[in-house]
Amino acid sequence: MKIIIDAMGGDNAPQEIVKGAAMALSQDRELKVVLTGDEAKIKAALAGLAYDPARLEIVHCTEVITNDDAPTLAIRQKKDSSLVVALKMLKEDADAAGFVSAGSTGAVLTGALLRVGRIRGISRPAVCPALPTAKGGKVLIIDAGANAECKPVNLCHFALMGTAYARAMGVKEPRVGLVTNGTEEHKGDPLHQESYHLLKSLQGIRFVGNVEGRDIMSGDIDVAVCDGFSGNIALKTAEGTALAVMSVIKQNIKASFAAKLGYALFMRGAFKKIKKVLDYSKYGGAVLLGIEKPVVKAHGSSKAESVCAAVLQVRDAAQSGLVGSIKEMLSGVDLEIGADA
Amino acid sequence: MKIIIDAMGGDNAPQEIVKGAAMALSQDRELKVVLTGDEAKIKAALAGLAYDPARLEIVHCTEVITNDDAPTLAIRQKKDSSLVVALKMLKEDADAAGFVSAGSTGAVLTGALLRVGRIRGISRPAVCPALPTAKGGKVLIIDAGANAECKPVNLCHFALMGTAYARAMGVKEPRVGLVTNGTEEHKGDPLHQESYHLLKSLQGIRFVGNVEGRDIMSGDIDVAVCDGFSGNIALKTAEGTALAVMSVIKQNIKASFAAKLGYALFMRGAFKKIKKVLDYSKYGGAVLLGIEKPVVKAHGSSKAESVCAAVLQVRDAAQSGLVGSIKEMLSGVDLEIGADA
Repeated sequence: MKIIIDAMGGDNAPQEIVKGAAMALSQDRELKVVLTGDEAKIKAALAGLAYDPARLEIVHCTEVITNDDAPTLAIRQKKDSSLVVALKMLKEDADAAGFVSAGSTGAVLTGALLRVGRIRGISRPAVCPALPTAKGGKVLIIDAGANAECKPVNLCHFALMGTAYARAMGVKEPRVGLVTNGTEEHKGDPLHQESYHLLKSLQGIRFVGNVEGRDIMSGDIDVAVCDGFSGNIALKTAEGTALAVMSVIKQNIKASFAAKLGYALFMRGAFKKIKKVLDYSKYGGAVLLGIEKPVVKAHGSSKAESVCAAVLQVRDAAQSGLVGSIKEMLSGVDLEIGADA
Repeated sequence: MKIIIDAMGGDNAPQEIVKGAAMALSQDRELKVVLTGDEAKIKAALAGLAYDPARLEIVHCTEVITNDDAPTLAIRQKKDSSLVVALKMLKEDADAAGFVSAGSTGAVLTGALLRVGRIRGISRPAVCPALPTAKGGKVLIIDAGANAECKPVNLCHFALMGTAYARAMGVKEPRVGLVTNGTEEHKGDPLHQESYHLLKSLQGIRFVGNVEGRDIMSGDIDVAVCDGFSGNIALKTAEGTALAVMSVIKQNIKASFAAKLGYALFMRGAFKKIKKVLDYSKYGGAVLLGIEKPVVKAHGSSKAESVCAAVLQVRDAAQSGLVGSIKEMLSGVDLEIGADA
């Protein structure tokens, strides 16, 4: 399986991206990677790393798209950028199974839309990250920020795509909740009220009704359907709260001599594990669902470990036949909902 | 100072409400409380409690509004309910300085609007709870759920009222952030884009620009302005995440013998403190801002300690002259924004 990696995207590119790619190669002997970017810099980053050169290809490009670039303009103009070259290859090379970038979210999304294309019937592809739950599992948030404005039909597509992805991750009958400001049927603004009624009768998903923000990480749902605006706020509030809680814990441990001693003697290991569970960037990135081939947007601050996780994540998505499953789900639903908005 | 308390609202009414009222009386010798509700039940709950009977009045009512009642209908029809009787007294008794209820949020909000009235110039009162921050302070979220649909002028009012309340809580120049799906100026849907521009030129507030969900609890802002829909999702996601994080920590401590021992020997005390900091219901409730007198909605699951905190919170709001400060701030801003929407 061949995965393309944007070697120049992200805060720690190309060093950590290249290192992550090499890590992924050593973890999966069937894997091939293509790194797009500045060849000299990629080769410098590869120096000293142990990897199988037969399974690593470099495609040289002269440009880089940064967070300061306006996404649409950059995708159209920077034709020799590591992102655009990678996406062109993803579209044209039948062997290319998926793509990973830690670069600008806007540019990755716009580029995937313009250069790879949407799945027929999906008007709005969505960003779909996973968060840990209180019960030790994972929950998908879809859409976590691709679409600040949505229509009810988009939320139905999010529910279908989230269900397909949760299944690909091994959840047999994913429970889908609509995130609103209350659990009652009439809650929310007109967008969410109408979406509730469409979701209730949507075939192919297991809709459990409206849920609140506090239910997202409870472990009681597998897919949290959101409009991209409030989904982004939910995702980032969860991220910020986890950081704030850990910071409050640290402060209180530091402030107590006994707790400090207990931590040093007994708890360091447990806390390392806790941090790993809570740091969602550690297990890869957010999948863009609704694109013709799997694309994973890794966190901008990704280090090698996260890049490696993102590469394995996009491999898993490709291997599970995710795009095919989404198409199959779409073909099973009412035309009115399955059609473009 | 006289505070009215709905003795029948909340999951633990009237026992814990009455107990909380007695606690508040013992903590403030200047305080008087009026309990509205079933006199026999209130008296039964008072039995055995130490309190000054000269500062506690019971006003008997025969009805109770529950979470199952439709708010507007209940406020109009259940005229002898503990909530409606309390609100009538709050409006008519010049000595009544504020009101606390742990009952249905919808009923408390609707009742306050219909029976006590809005501050002139505020078209949409808002719910304003405080959350702990990573830096040990507090942050206000406004609106946390009163208005699922908002206009830009409402968000400006939220910014003004939040600023007034943060000042009343001792923050000299409260930093106000607009919660959107990114920090750039153009982020968000049209509501938030337009609100950004209004807030930028709004007199009397210290607007620091757009913030993301992860910034809410960072300690870098004092007032998080939200539309009521996404504000509710942010608040409840924060609540749920804090619970999920604590649960992950518990699981990991239990799973490790060393960590379990360290916890038992050294860390129990620190964790009790941590839980207290994180449990926002412990320090009172959410103030309804934009009502002619201070109203605090305590958490439905409030125990005596939280009820006591909510009573002292509404006392503080009244003593600080919060309603007057909001009126003053409104008189200082452009008519276009200060006027009813």
